Amino acid sequence: MNIDRVVLAERPKGEPTKANFRFEKVGAPKLHKGELLLKVKWLSLDPYMRGRMDGSKSYAAPVSIGEPMQGECIAEVIDSQNNEFKVGELVSGGFGWVSHAVSNGKQLRKIPKSNIPEQASLGVLGMPGHTAWVGLNKIAKASPGETIVVSAASGAVGSLVGQLAKKKGLKVIGVAGSEKKCTYVTEELGYDGCINHQLASSVEDFRQLITRHCPNGVDIYFENVAGITLEAVLPNMNDFGRIAVCGMISWYSGKGLQEAMIFPKFWRMVLVKRLRVNGFIIFDHKESFPEFQKEVSSLIQGGEIKYKEDIRDGLESAPESFLDLLNGGNFGKMLVRL
Amino acid sequence: MNIDRVVLAERPKGEPTKANFRFEKVGAPKLHKGELLLKVKWLSLDPYMRGRMDGSKSYAAPVSIGEPMQGECIAEVIDSQNNEFKVGELVSGGFGWVSHAVSNGKQLRKIPKSNIPEQASLGVLGMPGHTAWVGLNKIAKASPGETIVVSAASGAVGSLVGQLAKKKGLKVIGVAGSEKKCTYVTEELGYDGCINHQLASSVEDFRQLITRHCPNGVDIYFENVAGITLEAVLPNMNDFGRIAVCGMISWYSGKGLQEAMIFPKFWRMVLVKRLRVNGFIIFDHKESFPEFQKEVSSLIQGGEIKYKEDIRDGLESAPESFLDLLNGGNFGKMLVRL
Repeated sequence: MNIDRVVLAERPKGEPTKANFRFEKVGAPKLHKGELLLKVKWLSLDPYMRGRMDGSKSYAAPVSIGEPMQGECIAEVIDSQNNEFKVGELVSGGFGWVSHAVSNGKQLRKIPKSNIPEQASLGVLGMPGHTAWVGLNKIAKASPGETIVVSAASGAVGSLVGQLAKKKGLKVIGVAGSEKKCTYVTEELGYDGCINHQLASSVEDFRQLITRHCPNGVDIYFENVAGITLEAVLPNMNDFGRIAVCGMISWYSGKGLQEAMIFPKFWRMVLVKRLRVNGFIIFDHKESFPEFQKEVSSLIQGGEIKYKEDIRDGLESAPESFLDLLNGGNFGKMLVRL
Repeated sequence: MNIDRVVLAERPKGEPTKANFRFEKVGAPKLHKGELLLKVKWLSLDPYMRGRMDGSKSYAAPVSIGEPMQGECIAEVIDSQNNEFKVGELVSGGFGWVSHAVSNGKQLRKIPKSNIPEQASLGVLGMPGHTAWVGLNKIAKASPGETIVVSAASGAVGSLVGQLAKKKGLKVIGVAGSEKKCTYVTEELGYDGCINHQLASSVEDFRQLITRHCPNGVDIYFENVAGITLEAVLPNMNDFGRIAVCGMISWYSGKGLQEAMIFPKFWRMVLVKRLRVNGFIIFDHKESFPEFQKEVSSLIQGGEIKYKEDIRDGLESAPESFLDLLNGGNFGKMLVRL
């Protein structure tokens, strides 16, 4: 049996391309005692993977050239030399962009049988959902009556941020990249409004659109994208506003960096408006995963939370799907079904 | 009797000059029932006053052209139509750059008789001291064993930040603008080290100086100055580091703004290092003043906290003394004795 995998062929210069990836087949290693063989069923594609393609130091080590891209997966146990895992069980773990993996059983999470589709464990009930929950509750410390702006509002993280914020009693305005996404955000997810950033002709125009949607100002900005969205939100922030910095996808590949506002202008806003700006990374918050999962599973089962998936088929589709994700070409949580 | 006062003659273009100020004499108004006449003994000069000279909106309204400059003072009651205040009592309040003031008795704080010199109520026991205490304890949430870098380390705020941090068990490194100030900071205030920013030949050189003084990185940066100090500290920040943004004196007059790092570079640091950046203004924290004052008075009386004053004589010295303060020409809390 061979294992298919997608490895990092070279580091991107600016925006990634398909040439940065390479497909390989490698032989499956023999199982030792305590190990299990896993067949990947679902691969999650997430914006943070862009950072792992660069060689520079970040909060996690980069992917080495020639090594498989990292990623969260759902897999089925197809062979087991480990008493704790039986053939046929489903587990999630960071197996990477691969068709099969060998594991010693550590760092795996069993997926309980439930009426919620298994792949939700990679999205609304997994890392992106947990990110939304932590950012809103622990980082931004949202309170009823406040106004929140959520960027990438129809994405895996943003779509849950806004729904949880609505349930908490906040006014919720989204920012998304198409009319179709905005309609989904307001009509399906129940946001109070959504701004299509493609329609903003300038930062100033964008700023005014936010002012119109948020006449009482913005108390919380949930930051997934940076770029002109950030620049348009900042002047709308209220005193004592909070910014939960979760991602900055529009700056990941070096576009628009020089056009950004000058740093001292931002620094003055922090002081004058007494802003609290807080970067966070979900891997630091494992202790709250059970609480998050319990709360959000029950909301999903009760039909109170909706989520959307953008499913692509076959491991070979992963690179192109990932490039789509970076350019906002997905609509919902990006998943590859193997 | 006439009242001497220093009014804002014109708004500064860039760095302020003496021509931005004008001396005036106005007649003293007659006291009405409930009012008291105050003779100012001490005027405090503080960096925040620079912001009030500009016409742009900030957390407080600007000084109007032709109106007296704002400022905290200690004054003696010399006439009183108010039963709560007796002639001869000392009070503090925001009377401005004036020789005399009429008050209705509201917003005044009586200065209790003590063995601490009265003018400490404008410095270590007043607004600057309270700023240090709030920034360290409530904003940065300093913990024993952490490393803090304090800019403007010999100034009214910085000198107390570092001493309180030492008492809490932190490693404390200062940044100041001369060898004399650095010697004072380490030998008198007990900081673990102090960097003379005048000796840094470049941001990179400055960054390395900080690395050498803080081999375990920087957990807290107490920001009073911005500019190259900020740029040199940022790469030294540890994961989960906090920045208490209290002031940015080096950028107040528009110098060095364009040379600053690009904003996206900073934004990435916030995310990757999970920084918490928190602007604060002392006027929002009145509720903690009694707790601060009790704690710090007793430390001063016990000889555990030192403070230094830079005393200038006569209201006519106020503009030049203020310009000195903006350029780091003071050594200790800047006060004008009338």
